[in-house]
Amino acid sequence: MTRYSIGIDIGGTNTVYGLVSTRGEIISAGSVSTREAPSIGEYIRTLCAGLREMVAAAGISSAQVQGIGVGAPCANYATGVIEAATDLPWPSPIPLKELLERELGITVTVTNDANAATEGERSYGAARGMSNFMMLTLGTGVGSGIVCNGHLLTGHRGFAGELGHCSVRGGEGRPCGCGRLDCLQTFCSASGVVSTARNVLAESDCDSPMRRIKDLTSRDVFDCAEMGDEAALETFRRTGEVLGRTCADFASFSDPEAIILFGGVAKAIKYIRPAMEKAFDENALHLYRGRVRILSSSLPESESAILGASALVWNAG
Amino acid sequence: MTRYSIGIDIGGTNTVYGLVSTRGEIISAGSVSTREAPSIGEYIRTLCAGLREMVAAAGISSAQVQGIGVGAPCANYATGVIEAATDLPWPSPIPLKELLERELGITVTVTNDANAATEGERSYGAARGMSNFMMLTLGTGVGSGIVCNGHLLTGHRGFAGELGHCSVRGGEGRPCGCGRLDCLQTFCSASGVVSTARNVLAESDCDSPMRRIKDLTSRDVFDCAEMGDEAALETFRRTGEVLGRTCADFASFSDPEAIILFGGVAKAIKYIRPAMEKAFDENALHLYRGRVRILSSSLPESESAILGASALVWNAG
Repeated sequence: MTRYSIGIDIGGTNTVYGLVSTRGEIISAGSVSTREAPSIGEYIRTLCAGLREMVAAAGISSAQVQGIGVGAPCANYATGVIEAATDLPWPSPIPLKELLERELGITVTVTNDANAATEGERSYGAARGMSNFMMLTLGTGVGSGIVCNGHLLTGHRGFAGELGHCSVRGGEGRPCGCGRLDCLQTFCSASGVVSTARNVLAESDCDSPMRRIKDLTSRDVFDCAEMGDEAALETFRRTGEVLGRTCADFASFSDPEAIILFGGVAKAIKYIRPAMEKAFDENALHLYRGRVRILSSSLPESESAILGASALVWNAG
Repeated sequence: MTRYSIGIDIGGTNTVYGLVSTRGEIISAGSVSTREAPSIGEYIRTLCAGLREMVAAAGISSAQVQGIGVGAPCANYATGVIEAATDLPWPSPIPLKELLERELGITVTVTNDANAATEGERSYGAARGMSNFMMLTLGTGVGSGIVCNGHLLTGHRGFAGELGHCSVRGGEGRPCGCGRLDCLQTFCSASGVVSTARNVLAESDCDSPMRRIKDLTSRDVFDCAEMGDEAALETFRRTGEVLGRTCADFASFSDPEAIILFGGVAKAIKYIRPAMEKAFDENALHLYRGRVRILSSSLPESESAILGASALVWNAG
């Protein structure tokens, strides 16, 4: 009997889901609105109706669905509960695992977006076959997932792998949304890249096209780098330098085989990686120097959320 | 059939070993010289003769010995090999696991001293029952062991948990033996404490008894603190501040339930802990604030090396 898993990615606007084969092919997919659901109860009913329809349309029996994985903001793997999610329209905590299992009678595994992405990379992507790697998701924030000795680290209360909030040495006092200063994500998130670009522009009077863009975004910085703009290239060099320096300390934790970059900012990996590798090797203990590969995610971005969530099913336990 | 394990601790001068019950009682113990063994072959033969004698004298059959655990400098859990140990009189690498298993026909597990101490604490000490904790051994250097999700982290090549070589933010450029600057161990090892004491003395003209001690040691700093010397107390406050600040970032990795201090410097925990707790809570992400206990090892120092090595047997795999 061919087995499948279901991956669900809950975003603030929409929830997408898909039926996934063990090889990481999305057989069928669908979506429901997150924002427009009037209550969590109504949302769960609409979502489950969509899932049942998807399974029926694929012509498989529900017994072939081995489990459901869910990636959601602020979701705790240990408890299956969404805790204090400011992006969702309903009050937290939300006992998501319990609600879905009660409605569907299938085992549900819940984790945050970064951990889901990590499991997706391990099952179908650049980390296939790896037992020791680290994933950094460079997007609106900086999330992370750590796999060590074959296990995704979750920790005592499910909050392991918050590397985006590790402090950068030699920072300049950048305020982070968490209330602290110089967290990695103030340098390497999308808005962190924009801050760095502003620093670069302020330090010279170079004629960069970035100066003419109102409300500069990290995507704009990337586009300017693609056109060869030196200030944009310098921005990504500095981003890579901070990443490499910080990851040099991360290596002392879990001795990873690879560090995998994912998310919007990671699209600029060709500009980030040379500086990141150099800074890593200059700052790492000799045991890790030249031994940790820096890779980019190999999953298509449009599919990675569903694939990552579905991979929770294969890797659970 | 009552089961036992054997713990072996290989030091540069002597090798100590003991027969240990599942409850952490040392039934019988012995030692051989490390330094005086003319070759690794001769050393293994002498050690194994001692082990056989110990088992026979305890009146148990060798079938009751479930396994042998060895703590040794620079020993790699993944390979069972001692790599580049400058403290031992024979050339590295030394395939210790293979040599002992061939001679004794019993499964041997090998790891470095800090990981052995970590397993000892988990089996018999302050971390009993914990699945997520971190151990910092504050001695000649700073070693560490990390248990997360119930597993001792070893990593891709066995070098996970080198937290003594993570960098301290806002350091002052202290050179470390590894060739880098401001590693945690330059502040929190025995010699790191002495450097801090010298800083404290240089900053004022206070009348500290530490000024009159030639070749000041961390033990002297402790003795002066015990006498109420303000400069010595300030030294441990600063040590605690660096530990707390650095551990705040460590928490983002593995979400530990507790951080356990061990080793000579940890004897001063009553002077270190208040500043460490304060700095931890001031610097940690809100998820960890007030949630991580700082404890000292509860194993007698004279027994901890044998106990830690023996615990590898129970926790292996």
